[in-house]
Amino acid sequence: MNPRLFSFLAGPHGAWRITRISSVVGEILPPAPYLELVAGEVAHPAASTPPFLPAPADAGWRLRGVVSNERYVTRDEKTELVAKQEGLGRAEASCAALIPIRKNAAWWAMTQDERRRLFEEQSKHIRIGLPFLPAIARRLHHCRDLPTPEPFDFLTWFEYAPADAPAFEELVRQLRATPEWTYVEREVDVRLERVV
Amino acid sequence: MNPRLFSFLAGPHGAWRITRISSVVGEILPPAPYLELVAGEVAHPAASTPPFLPAPADAGWRLRGVVSNERYVTRDEKTELVAKQEGLGRAEASCAALIPIRKNAAWWAMTQDERRRLFEEQSKHIRIGLPFLPAIARRLHHCRDLPTPEPFDFLTWFEYAPADAPAFEELVRQLRATPEWTYVEREVDVRLERVV
Repeated sequence: MNPRLFSFLAGPHGAWRITRISSVVGEILPPAPYLELVAGEVAHPAASTPPFLPAPADAGWRLRGVVSNERYVTRDEKTELVAKQEGLGRAEASCAALIPIRKNAAWWAMTQDERRRLFEEQSKHIRIGLPFLPAIARRLHHCRDLPTPEPFDFLTWFEYAPADAPAFEELVRQLRATPEWTYVEREVDVRLERVV
Repeated sequence: MNPRLFSFLAGPHGAWRITRISSVVGEILPPAPYLELVAGEVAHPAASTPPFLPAPADAGWRLRGVVSNERYVTRDEKTELVAKQEGLGRAEASCAALIPIRKNAAWWAMTQDERRRLFEEQSKHIRIGLPFLPAIARRLHHCRDLPTPEPFDFLTWFEYAPADAPAFEELVRQLRATPEWTYVEREVDVRLERVV
């Protein structure tokens, strides 16, 4: 198994309780009570259902993605990020968000310099995020180049303490107002609380 | 299936006859008589062998990769490439090369600006290739972010007419002499001729 592959399994069990699922743009994800974040590959919760029976409505869903090399950040930006950011799994970070995003064909038809210009010079994606470090930890997973067609291009997982919940709202509000976000054709916002 | 996924299946059958397999750096691939280039996923040629029997030595091998968005090319470079390049499958292009490459950890630890600088400003990867268009057609497949650990990061497939074989030798000679190539830790060179 690729050690950079992670699966997000929503269903009847999990270390995170799903408190809210909302659609920002496009089709929403089905409701589910819990989510498990698993290193590696896991079967879809409905996979054991024989194919001649429809999966039960509460069978949940599975998303997966691979942590990859960084696509836009420069060395100077990376130095600034690394100096401030913290990792996942902090004891106090009992709030989480899973934000799956799909960008449109116009985004993917752009060349690297065009995408970088929109991402940072015009939208200040990295610049917007910096003041929210180290409070908000994040990990980005790529799905677009998996062998199976995936419903999203990216899955971003965020962790923060309850006291930083207003800051997180402000972060997503600012990002969604950027020119980069006009290329987002599907975005779901899943909020969670750690069970234990 | 992801429509950008392609499998390279070496074994007893295929539309391309393998004329030579050589190692440029690192471990070579096993010998095989033919290669099939297939859209989508295919089983490994030894997959039907029960696990309690070792796969026969001539069972062949399978590599797969996904055509992705471009990672380095700028709009100006892309315009120049598109004006000159031709696609795969030309009747006269009965020669092919499959060149699987793995880059080292130092390459992948670099940020985007550092990789771009090495790729083009220092190594002139795009600039070196341009004079060989349209004679040599190519398609790049990415493997590093597949769910399974893959032996290579990239698979590049080239097609050209027999008369352009010396030009192809010159192209790979020039690329292998660049600073970018000091980050290549495994490279195999598979040459082929179309059967029909």
